[in-house]
This record gives sequence, C-alpha cells and structure tokens, in this order.
Amino acid sequence: MTQQTSSHADQTASTADRAADWALSRTSAHAPGAPLVTIIGDGQLARMMHQAGIEMGLTIRVLAGAADSSTAQVTPDVVIGDYTNRNHVDEVSRDADAVTFDHEHVPNAFTEELIAAGVNVQPQPQALINAQDKLVMRKRLREMGAPVPPFMPIESVEDIQGFFEATGGAVCLKARRGGYDGKGVWFPESAEEAAELVAELLDKGTPLMAEKKVRLVRELSAMVARTPSGEVAAWPVVESVQQDGICFEAVAPAPNTNAELLAQAEDLARTVATELGVTGVLAVELFETVDEAGQPEIIVNELAMRPHNTGHWTQDGCVTSQFEQHLRAVLDRPLGSPAPIARHTVMANVLGADFEPDTPIHQRMDECWRRFPEAKIHMYGKDWRPRRKMGHVNMTLKEGQSVDELRTNARLAATYVVTGAWEDGYEG
Amino acid sequence: MTQQTSSHADQTASTADRAADWALSRTSAHAPGAPLVTIIGDGQLARMMHQAGIEMGLTIRVLAGAADSSTAQVTPDVVIGDYTNRNHVDEVSRDADAVTFDHEHVPNAFTEELIAAGVNVQPQPQALINAQDKLVMRKRLREMGAPVPPFMPIESVEDIQGFFEATGGAVCLKARRGGYDGKGVWFPESAEEAAELVAELLDKGTPLMAEKKVRLVRELSAMVARTPSGEVAAWPVVESVQQDGICFEAVAPAPNTNAELLAQAEDLARTVATELGVTGVLAVELFETVDEAGQPEIIVNELAMRPHNTGHWTQDGCVTSQFEQHLRAVLDRPLGSPAPIARHTVMANVLGADFEPDTPIHQRMDECWRRFPEAKIHMYGKDWRPRRKMGHVNMTLKEGQSVDELRTNARLAATYVVTGAWEDGYEG
Repeated sequence: MTQQTSSHADQTASTADRAADWALSRTSAHAPGAPLVTIIGDGQLARMMHQAGIEMGLTIRVLAGAADSSTAQVTPDVVIGDYTNRNHVDEVSRDADAVTFDHEHVPNAFTEELIAAGVNVQPQPQALINAQDKLVMRKRLREMGAPVPPFMPIESVEDIQGFFEATGGAVCLKARRGGYDGKGVWFPESAEEAAELVAELLDKGTPLMAEKKVRLVRELSAMVARTPSGEVAAWPVVESVQQDGICFEAVAPAPNTNAELLAQAEDLARTVATELGVTGVLAVELFETVDEAGQPEIIVNELAMRPHNTGHWTQDGCVTSQFEQHLRAVLDRPLGSPAPIARHTVMANVLGADFEPDTPIHQRMDECWRRFPEAKIHMYGKDWRPRRKMGHVNMTLKEGQSVDELRTNARLAATYVVTGAWEDGYEG
Repeated sequence: MTQQTSSHADQTASTADRAADWALSRTSAHAPGAPLVTIIGDGQLARMMHQAGIEMGLTIRVLAGAADSSTAQVTPDVVIGDYTNRNHVDEVSRDADAVTFDHEHVPNAFTEELIAAGVNVQPQPQALINAQDKLVMRKRLREMGAPVPPFMPIESVEDIQGFFEATGGAVCLKARRGGYDGKGVWFPESAEEAAELVAELLDKGTPLMAEKKVRLVRELSAMVARTPSGEVAAWPVVESVQQDGICFEAVAPAPNTNAELLAQAEDLARTVATELGVTGVLAVELFETVDEAGQPEIIVNELAMRPHNTGHWTQDGCVTSQFEQHLRAVLDRPLGSPAPIARHTVMANVLGADFEPDTPIHQRMDECWRRFPEAKIHMYGKDWRPRRKMGHVNMTLKEGQSVDELRTNARLAATYVVTGAWEDGYEG
C-alpha cells in the first residue's frame, strides 16, 4: 500500500516532464451526417432537448449567454453570445437543419431575415408572435372562435377605468410582452389602484392589455406537437397547479375530469396549432371555470411554443417526451407516439426554498431516493435562488396507489430536495 | 421578400467586419458543486451514461480516443487520450468523485495506483479481473459454487487433446482475455483442428482456456447493480438472442420461463455481485440448458461489469435505466427502482448491414417512425460498418399485443434502419 502510494506520487510528479509526450486536449466533433439543430437559449429546456437529441443521433448547437449556463454545462457545441445581437443569432443559425428556441425573446426581425435567406426556423415568427404578444394572441383566438375572456388593449387611464367599470372590477391587467411565472400580471382591487398602476406602467413604456378575471376552478394544460407538414400529436391534458404564479405541479391526465372536457381541450389545442401554423411543441394553458348553467368550461389563458413546464411529466410518463417531439417536429420528421405509459404521472417542481440548507443538494437527492426509489429527479445544474426552478420530480402511479397519494409523494420528494426536511415529519 | 433577402445578404457580408465587436467562443463550464464522474472510454455506453448523468445533475468527464467518438460528440468535458497511457488515465481521474469505465481494458496496475492514492475507482480491479480474465472468473465462480461448465487452462497442445477426449469433442476454446461479440471463441470440430488451433494461438502468445460446450436451449442475462456499501438492485431477467456471436435482441422479462428459473438466475446474479465485490452494473450472461432429468438449468457464460447490451431495454422499459443505475452505484448513492413499466419490453440491435443504402440513415429512421410511432430508436453517432453496433430500438408491449408480435416489430424496425427495406414486404 505504501509502495503503491509512493509510486503514484512519483507518477504524478513526473507528469509535467512527460507532458510533451502526449496531447491532452478538450475537444469534440460532430457525428458525420447528423442533422444539426441550433437552439437559441441556454436554460433547462435546451438542456433537456440536448438530452433527447443524443439518442436521436442529432447534433445540437446552442447559443448560450454563459459557459456555466444550464445547457452549456452538458453539451459540447456551445456558442457564447447574445440572442439580441443579430450577428450572434446569424452565426449559430448558418448550416443548421433547423433553428429553434427555448424562449420567446429572439427579435422576429432576425428570424424573418434568416427565413428569407433560406434558413429553416421553427416555429416561425407569424406563429410565434402569438406567444410573444398577449394582445395579438387574444385577438387571433377570438377571430378563430376559441374561448377567451372579454379583453381590451389599455392605452390610457381612461381605458382601464372603462374596463374596470364594465367588468364590475373583475380586472386582470397584463403586460402584453415579456411576462412569465406570474410576472407582468396584476389584479388591481379598486378603480383608483387600476388607474395608478396603468399610469405608472404606461409611463415606463409597457404596452398593456386587460381582460376579465375568470372564476377559476383550476388550471389545465393541453399540449400538442405539430410539424411544418401538418402532422399533429396530442398528449393527454394535464391539471396544472400554480403557486404565486409559478408552476408547481402537473397531474396527467387531469384527474376527476369528464372525458368531454378533456376532449374539448385537446381539440382546442389541435385547432390552435393548425390555425396559427405552430411548429414544434405548443402548450395551451387553460382556465377551467363554470358557465352560467354551472357546467365546466375552458378558457385559454396563455400559449407557449416550445417545451413547457406542464409537459415535463412526458419524460417519464409517455412513450415520447416533449423534448424529443419538439426536435422531431422542428425537423419536420414523423412524430412519436404521445401515449402515456402509466395510468397517472405527477410532476412536481423543485423550486428554490427561502434559504439553502447546509447539506449539499446531492445528499438531499440521496435521502429523497432512499425514501422514494421510484422518484425520477431531473436537475438543471442551477444555483440556489428562492423560488427558482432548479429541477423537477416525476413519479408514475404504482399498482394499488391513489392519485392523491402519488401527488403527495411527488410533492414531498420535490420539497425535500430543496429544504432537506420531510413536510410530513417522516424520519426514515 | 426580396428586400429581406438583400438585407440578410448585407448582414452576412458585414459579419466579418463586425467580428471584433463580440466574442464568439465555443466553451462550457461545470455546474457548481456537481459530482464529477470520469468515464474511461468513448463508446455508446459512456454516451448513454452522459445522457443519464444530465438529469442527475452530474458532471461527466470522458477519456476519449478521438474527438468524433460516440461519447465525445455529445459531451463537453472530453479529454483526448489513450487508456493504455498511465499519465492520461491519471490526468482525467484526478478530482473525480468516481472513476468508472465503459470497457474492461484499462490496465489494473493503473487503477490500483489510483486507488492507493485515494481515488474512488469503481468497479475495483479485484472485482474487474473476473470480467477481464475468463479463467480467473471460472475458477472463482466454481469456488463459490456457482454453476459453470467443466473447464481447464490450456497451456499446451497436450492439454487440448486431453480435454477434447474427456468431453467427447464438445470443446469450446476461448482466449482468456479480450474476446467480445463472438471474437476469441472457437469450436474445433476435430482433435486435429483443436491441436492446430491451440498451437497457432499459443505461438501468438494468446493465453487460453477450454470449457465443455453446453447443449444450449437459449441465452439469458441476469443484471443487477451494486453499490460499494452493498445495496443491490436486480432488473427482471431477460432472454438474449445472439447472431454470429453478436447480441441481436433482448426480451424482458424472458418469456415462457418458469418463475423458479428466473428467481434462480436473479439470485445467482445477486450472489456473484456480492461475493466478487462488484460495484456498478453487473451482467451475468447465462446459458439455459437441460439437466439429465430434462429440467431447465442455468450455467454462467460471461460476466460484464458495466452497462451491457442486454440491459439497453431498461432505458424505455424500467423506472431506472442501467445507465442511471451505474452512475448512482459508482458514486455509492441509493439505487433507483428497477421495476419494469410494461409487461414486456423488447430491444433489437441496429447492426450495420452488409452494404449501406443510398438513403441517409435519418430518412430511414423517419420511415421506421412512420410505421412504428412507438419505436424508441437510440443511435450512437457511428459510421456504417457491416455488423457494427450502430444503435438499438426499444419497444414496450401494447394492450392486446402478443410478445411475438412485439419481437417481430422491434426486429423489423431495427433492420429497416440499416437496410431501408421491410423484411415483411410492407409497403407503407
């Protein structure tokens, strides 16, 4: 043992001397002939697209803001740049078989130019605008006859005062662009508050719209993928649970829901995808409410045209995950089966706790796995920040388990990973 | 349109001028605090380990022979080097939380030194020797009381002549080291042929052993994972089908098999893992034969201490894949549930055909997906070569489908990907 140690030490000492003998380089190359997909964006969605792309034999190139971003950590073809810089977007898009996104913020002027130059950008700006501008989306959906709440553009204090009165104070004020995870949405409680808020936001140059607040029963999400050739595949509709505007849990399929409502939600998503010419994954976030006759009714909340938090369950709950399906769709390749592999799957988000526990996160994952060996923990390589989406946990229904039990377990697991404490007092 | 094109052309022309404005670099960095696993090896097994490592939030570093190797194509932390060079192995192993392998060929002297210096190498040489040297393995298993065929070391022509006579000519001659996919195994048909073969091989310096050829009913594979702390998890035992010595198909669990035999095979794998101190994934390749009373019986064929071809089905057929499980095990973290998610899963290898069709492989994958939207195609980023393992297809049993139908479909799909022809004459 002593001799081995000393032999190893000699070895290490002489490494530098021998460095000239061999080339130690960090590098990688593409697979010959592999389709190249450029993803603009470096978050967990691009990270999970790369993961799916590996088994498809694709090459993924990402335009990342930083070398330690979620995607750059795990993928070799990383270009560090800025998606608001036309040259950077241009550079990474050249030669790609498809260019796609993990967010909606690339200026449409850039992608229009790429398309004009023959680059295959998916989804295209004329579809994507409906995921970028809530007013454009609301108008377009109303034209299509899709269920939307009463809404109007807000361009003055007078506009909001009129809308506040017309809706009896049931006002949801929204920034037309850039809102997410509960940001860019306000619920003024009085006409005065509404007027002040609008004056302030317009003053800052924020384009606004308002819509009538719905009597929310719960939120649903209907997800489909569509190819440029027009093939559409729909996953089962899920119930999604928000907490302070941030997605927190998804249950697939939505439990205790009549089949008619689920079919209606799925049809709606198919129609929206086709009518708007969406390519790749489309998430139609829905409000379930009740109509005047007390019957359940759905209303479109938001659209997202990329893999979506409410579709993470598909990684462990479906034959084809939303990440694989998005890549197939943007390349105009045949879509995979969206069939579920279990009666129910629950996804719970791993959201940064208010403080970071002393034990390292990997030890907390271990404790979580010890209690729930069936928990599929997906981490994004992100530092702790309160409420930050750091990962998610998927679990599928086991024989003899109830959906409520499954939801409880998924929540317990996801919470433990960030807090290091079992909410139910479990002591192992 | 014309204006957009010309605007894009201007843009492109001016890119070079503006290059000084921004830094375009290809780079990536590790996630802060992520456990680092070094994998020596750059084939499809390391590639699929990286894929599994992404969702676990791990950092994977690979020692690869070439920048365009299967793993280097998809992972950022790639060191180009040679696993038979002590310095290279040393360099990539420093600072790793675990060092593991995608093959058995790293010299044990290197890993012994690393271990002596405090590096966490898994599996360790004293276990790994049993996957490297067939004679060592046979002796050790016989000591343990595990079922092995009669065998002996072959160090002279006289040895093989004696063994040939003793077994009535039922001889399987093996190179003790380095054989795989049917290489390094011979079945001499006469005593003369055996003698000539042995003379020739010994002359080349090939260490040899011989064992009695069994009356093969079929092959099974029992796979487990074991942690350094001693936790063991077993997947269902599979039937594996070989063609010219190359794995061709795996059916999980092995169909038409009595529960007792399956339990016996699983117990055997658990015992072997524990007795040999295996860490990570262990595949126990088994021969099913019949004893003198006509009862089914199992005999150990080979051991592999890493993810194994007969375990690829776990990616789409189990809660925890062999790749994730191997990473958990070598880091001594709790093992995941090995429970299957379907009644049966079939894996069919995508083996390079005798000639390469004109249509690109990605178009062939598309045709395959069009017919079988449920086919999970896993590609390795490898160029065509006859009989080369280029990928595999997993499919799980659907409602109302027979296992035979599933096997047929998986075979059709895997064959189509390489030949571009449907073996059953299907015309779409």
